[in-house]
Amino acid sequence: MLYLVPVLAILGLVVMAFKAKWVMKQDAGDSKMSTIAKHIREGALAFLAAEYRILAIFVVIAGALLGFISSLVETTHWFIVVAFVIGAVFSALAGNIGMRIATAANVRTTQAARTSLTKALKVSFGGGTVMGLGVAGLAVFGLSSLFIILFFWFMGGEWVGREFAGAQRSPVELMTIILEALAGFSLGAESIALFARVGGGIYTKAADVGADLVGKIEAGIPEDDPRNPATIADNVGDNVGDVAGMGADLFGSYVATVLAAMVLGNYVIRDMGGDIVHEGFMGMGTILLPLVIAALGIVFSIIGTFFVNVRKEDAKEADVQRALNMGNWGSIVLTGIASYIIIDWMLPAEITMQFFRASGFEYETIGSINVFYAVLVGLFVGAAISYFTEFYTGLGKKPVLSIVQKSNTGAATNIIAGLGVGMMSTFAPVLLFAAAIWSAYEFAGFYGVSIAASAMMATTAMQLAIDAFGPIADNAGGIAEMSELPKEVRRRTDVLDSVGNTTAAIGKGFAIASAALTALALFAAYVTFTGINGINIFKADVLAALFVGGMVPVVFSALAMNSVGKAAMDMVNEVRRQFREIPGILEGTGQPEYGKCVEISTKAALREMLLPGALTIIAPILIGFGMGAEALGAYMAGVAVSGVLWAIFQNNAGGAWDNAKKSFEAGVMIDGVMTFKGSEAHKAAVTGDTVGDPFKDTSGPSMNILIKLTCLIGLVLAPILGKMSGTGHGNVPAPIENKANINNDLPENTVVLTSLSEN
Amino acid sequence: MLYLVPVLAILGLVVMAFKAKWVMKQDAGDSKMSTIAKHIREGALAFLAAEYRILAIFVVIAGALLGFISSLVETTHWFIVVAFVIGAVFSALAGNIGMRIATAANVRTTQAARTSLTKALKVSFGGGTVMGLGVAGLAVFGLSSLFIILFFWFMGGEWVGREFAGAQRSPVELMTIILEALAGFSLGAESIALFARVGGGIYTKAADVGADLVGKIEAGIPEDDPRNPATIADNVGDNVGDVAGMGADLFGSYVATVLAAMVLGNYVIRDMGGDIVHEGFMGMGTILLPLVIAALGIVFSIIGTFFVNVRKEDAKEADVQRALNMGNWGSIVLTGIASYIIIDWMLPAEITMQFFRASGFEYETIGSINVFYAVLVGLFVGAAISYFTEFYTGLGKKPVLSIVQKSNTGAATNIIAGLGVGMMSTFAPVLLFAAAIWSAYEFAGFYGVSIAASAMMATTAMQLAIDAFGPIADNAGGIAEMSELPKEVRRRTDVLDSVGNTTAAIGKGFAIASAALTALALFAAYVTFTGINGINIFKADVLAALFVGGMVPVVFSALAMNSVGKAAMDMVNEVRRQFREIPGILEGTGQPEYGKCVEISTKAALREMLLPGALTIIAPILIGFGMGAEALGAYMAGVAVSGVLWAIFQNNAGGAWDNAKKSFEAGVMIDGVMTFKGSEAHKAAVTGDTVGDPFKDTSGPSMNILIKLTCLIGLVLAPILGKMSGTGHGNVPAPIENKANINNDLPENTVVLTSLSEN
Repeated sequence: MLYLVPVLAILGLVVMAFKAKWVMKQDAGDSKMSTIAKHIREGALAFLAAEYRILAIFVVIAGALLGFISSLVETTHWFIVVAFVIGAVFSALAGNIGMRIATAANVRTTQAARTSLTKALKVSFGGGTVMGLGVAGLAVFGLSSLFIILFFWFMGGEWVGREFAGAQRSPVELMTIILEALAGFSLGAESIALFARVGGGIYTKAADVGADLVGKIEAGIPEDDPRNPATIADNVGDNVGDVAGMGADLFGSYVATVLAAMVLGNYVIRDMGGDIVHEGFMGMGTILLPLVIAALGIVFSIIGTFFVNVRKEDAKEADVQRALNMGNWGSIVLTGIASYIIIDWMLPAEITMQFFRASGFEYETIGSINVFYAVLVGLFVGAAISYFTEFYTGLGKKPVLSIVQKSNTGAATNIIAGLGVGMMSTFAPVLLFAAAIWSAYEFAGFYGVSIAASAMMATTAMQLAIDAFGPIADNAGGIAEMSELPKEVRRRTDVLDSVGNTTAAIGKGFAIASAALTALALFAAYVTFTGINGINIFKADVLAALFVGGMVPVVFSALAMNSVGKAAMDMVNEVRRQFREIPGILEGTGQPEYGKCVEISTKAALREMLLPGALTIIAPILIGFGMGAEALGAYMAGVAVSGVLWAIFQNNAGGAWDNAKKSFEAGVMIDGVMTFKGSEAHKAAVTGDTVGDPFKDTSGPSMNILIKLTCLIGLVLAPILGKMSGTGHGNVPAPIENKANINNDLPENTVVLTSLSEN
Repeated sequence: MLYLVPVLAILGLVVMAFKAKWVMKQDAGDSKMSTIAKHIREGALAFLAAEYRILAIFVVIAGALLGFISSLVETTHWFIVVAFVIGAVFSALAGNIGMRIATAANVRTTQAARTSLTKALKVSFGGGTVMGLGVAGLAVFGLSSLFIILFFWFMGGEWVGREFAGAQRSPVELMTIILEALAGFSLGAESIALFARVGGGIYTKAADVGADLVGKIEAGIPEDDPRNPATIADNVGDNVGDVAGMGADLFGSYVATVLAAMVLGNYVIRDMGGDIVHEGFMGMGTILLPLVIAALGIVFSIIGTFFVNVRKEDAKEADVQRALNMGNWGSIVLTGIASYIIIDWMLPAEITMQFFRASGFEYETIGSINVFYAVLVGLFVGAAISYFTEFYTGLGKKPVLSIVQKSNTGAATNIIAGLGVGMMSTFAPVLLFAAAIWSAYEFAGFYGVSIAASAMMATTAMQLAIDAFGPIADNAGGIAEMSELPKEVRRRTDVLDSVGNTTAAIGKGFAIASAALTALALFAAYVTFTGINGINIFKADVLAALFVGGMVPVVFSALAMNSVGKAAMDMVNEVRRQFREIPGILEGTGQPEYGKCVEISTKAALREMLLPGALTIIAPILIGFGMGAEALGAYMAGVAVSGVLWAIFQNNAGGAWDNAKKSFEAGVMIDGVMTFKGSEAHKAAVTGDTVGDPFKDTSGPSMNILIKLTCLIGLVLAPILGKMSGTGHGNVPAPIENKANINNDLPENTVVLTSLSEN
């Protein structure tokens, strides 16, 4: 079973390679098209190359710091540094694969759209599939193979205690050491995600806002017009932000979720007496389960891609959406069924684990079916969050229509309405998350919460395929416009693009849900790693840390938004300069310098992401060492709660403004008058959309990374902080077999005082 | 000492009456002026009357509910209902006094401005002083006289135990019962604040946005133009929102802070063995201290008003600001000095109290000087928050200038910049609050936190005087405009108005700080009342409640903003109708129907505040009874953390947009070009200001009420919840004299498990 996981991951990578070969084989169109595509591709790869240079420096510094930290605690092995580097490289590699295929699939989609919509969907979704399988395959392969190496290295490949770092260790302790080292892989992956999401987010919006401000508003030329020097940068940005950024984000969530579930699975074994070898699976059933679910998810995602098909040539948005939904639901249902079987097979029929009740820790025994219920919770959250996101941001739905109506009285009322929709949209998702935390915990403790997250993330390959399809289709439309192809082509790519916008919004909802559940799982792993007795916000310093944690996402968002503003200004000035200095540029006779704009976006994005990046990394370290383990836990909770809120608020407000603007393309009824593009109301809606751009593409999605990275840094620091406060896992209380002894109605403080007064 | 408190409060009310008489004696100007003033006054009183009708219904329902709740727990006396009604009536009375004086002082300020600025300042600040003394005097008088009644009724006026409700009770228990009943007074006051702040906030912005949208933008007539039918409603709104709303808000904070400090003072006595009668002050020094500080604050506020004086006739904004600052600082410094003396006098030299440390509750002994340090923390927070607020929203400061610069590229970049400033401005205040919580706690436990809050609130009378002066000056300018008085008059009122805008922003910062500290003090009192062992967010249900709590302020803001949108639309339609149907209205020959607009605003405000009001009240009740005391505590923390963030974000973004727009009046340099009113950049800034209006005047300030009311409802429910979970104060562990026994390095969980395994 242990080896099946990397094998299935490799299967995913092989299928990816075949799919990629098929996409590359497609016709790339005429010379004009391929020249434009080449510009986009080169711009995208230039950004990646510049990003990798900065990342290399970061990895060296952070790796050295990590090495220093690992030397402080005997149970943190130096291998964490190796795992960190591998995690960073794998995440970067996945991003690279995604960018290469996306920038090849875009022009091939355009060319395919010259013949048929069916073909165009096949190519663009094919590109998305390559991206999805690349991310999922590399994540599972990296995590599982490192785990196998460490398992043989530290434990000799069997569940027995042995001496390690100068002391005799139980297998649970050895496994804790293995998983601590493995946390490096997750940290490496999430660090790349920080740069890809934040840097990519700044890039894409600086280019977009810059292109729009001067192009659409000042010069009055349409979007994607080849006369606009920033138009290539804009198209590069779609790839940088929506493909590489999203890919790295989900790569990070995927790895962190599985890792947290493994950590908590190990503690389940501890709670059951430290040895469940008689249950089979090398005594690691609860640890392997999340890995196996992830591996099977890859297989079901591959199967799901076969469902994505449109036969009718005159297919509308709804048909394409239905095809994608078929694929998505197919893989989710298959994952659900398979989970039932493997949980029944891999887990002990009865599982004993610690629950934190009103009177303190208690041991309770649950049936393994409860873990399956937790899986259902996770799958339900994934589906429900998509539904809520679509409701709040979808075309023709009430919230977007309300923004459209308010556009008639100007930009101010449009913006107030959009902010209101964004704020309002936090209601249902937060109740959903709260219910999910509570119910998954009631089913199977924090192990249940982490398994719920793993189950939701299992079909990441399919989610990403659907998600990456959007920017590919968007690019394809841009290329059609710039190459001045027949309207028919643009009409076909517009169908795909429109569906892509919906899937992008839904994908963002999924990414938030994954970040929220991942953070919770990491939070639970953190508390268990440090060995502290929970996080009590009635302590003044802990409460203070909760406040500070709540503030960080807000300030982070401000930094990200300001960065977009500054970077966009650079772009505006450059475009203005070109309009002024290059003769005939607006008449279409002069050649714009696309490369200059790409360079400016790249530089600005990399410069501007440093401050928010530093805030993310340094703040938890300061809190942890300055205020202790419990305060850092509260800080993590503050970041998670506030971060989830601001992520939903910003993403949905941005998505709703975007579609409010789009509503005018087909015309909308306002106060009984049909209103179209070019009206005053439409202009107001364009303003709203511009405000929403950094919300939904920069600061909003960055929240995911902030939340997860904060919790991961906490997890890596946990052993040191635990040691500092004397609660490290050396001090973890031994499991107690007879749970009757522990059931006790007296409140804990009474017990403490009783025992103390006996001193 | 006990009787000195209501005596000083009455002194404040007497000074208020003299001041009011003086203001009313001033010349109210010519007939045109007094007609306009009459319109405003009648509109304001009509709103109050309508509000009171709804409030009366609310008070009856809530009172009945409260009576039912009090019947559930033997230690909650039915007198809580009486206290609730008195609290509501006193708060409403204070609001009424404020509105009456403000709507009389406005026209008298206009008239005074015809002769001199000095005189105009004297009249407008005189009106503010009446408001401030009315609020502070009624609050302290109500609280202290109810306390005296209950102290004699339940305890016979001395610190001894007796039988009560069928059981022998210690004096600490009797005092707890008294303070629980007194919580009704605070709840009543805060309920009025909910309606005044939320309803008033909706009213003022519906009128303002409605008047601007049709008047300035569609009809192109200036602000405060008598041809605009909504202009009276707009001026009424300034009084309703900024005078009555702010007054009720601070009334509520003031009472809640003192009450929470009294509750925690009682627990200090418990920690010291339950009896400190030998220390004098009837054995209630720690309980009386916050009342005495509040009473002295009134006296020092009166003294401070004498410092507010401008001699030069050609005084500029800076001179007026300096005069107000003198008054403010004078009263703060005097309060600080007096606090040192009375703390030394009233408190035991050594105070033993419980601290919550890593290893659980510990008894520690501090010097009474530590309580004075906590006072300094509170005074510092009040001063620092004003400084930060002024920095982020002040004219000519970097944040506002950055918004001005961004206005040149249109409304979208202006709005992005404003949102960024608002978000960024959460950084320093949150760090300030976090540091204040931590340091005040380290000095003197949660008693220290509540005393810090009380000290900050002590000069409420002065704060309100400065704050209410703003809308009076604003109104005075409006009346000058509408009465077509000479430009010179408007110039003088503009000086006052401009200072008033700054003090309004600062006042909002002060109100947030007061709400934050009040919430903390209430939170601490809540935990102690329920007798739970802290709030551990590592429990899944508690964490879920924290998430839900974090979401509520966001949804509340959305509801409030949507309400403004809807109410403003009603107003827009009415103004359009009048422009259409009343002949000659735009030429100045037709008479607009001001009353219709006032009526529409009133109705809309009262209708729209019901949903957010219901959310505020019902959510904590559901969480408390559905999920228990600990979850409700986490919910309260979530509301407080998220609410403070959203309050700061919305207030400062709104304030910054407002002043960015104002910057154009004197002209600003953008990209090397002087830019003025009427430019494209100015239009963009007007859009930003319109977006900011509901932020800074409706949803932002409402957060204060949401935070405090949530915590107050928690406090009122605390005894029942404590009883439900078996941790009520009957179970509070007895104080232990010898603290050496308790100092213990072992982590709590180890101790618990040791004692358990001995079972």
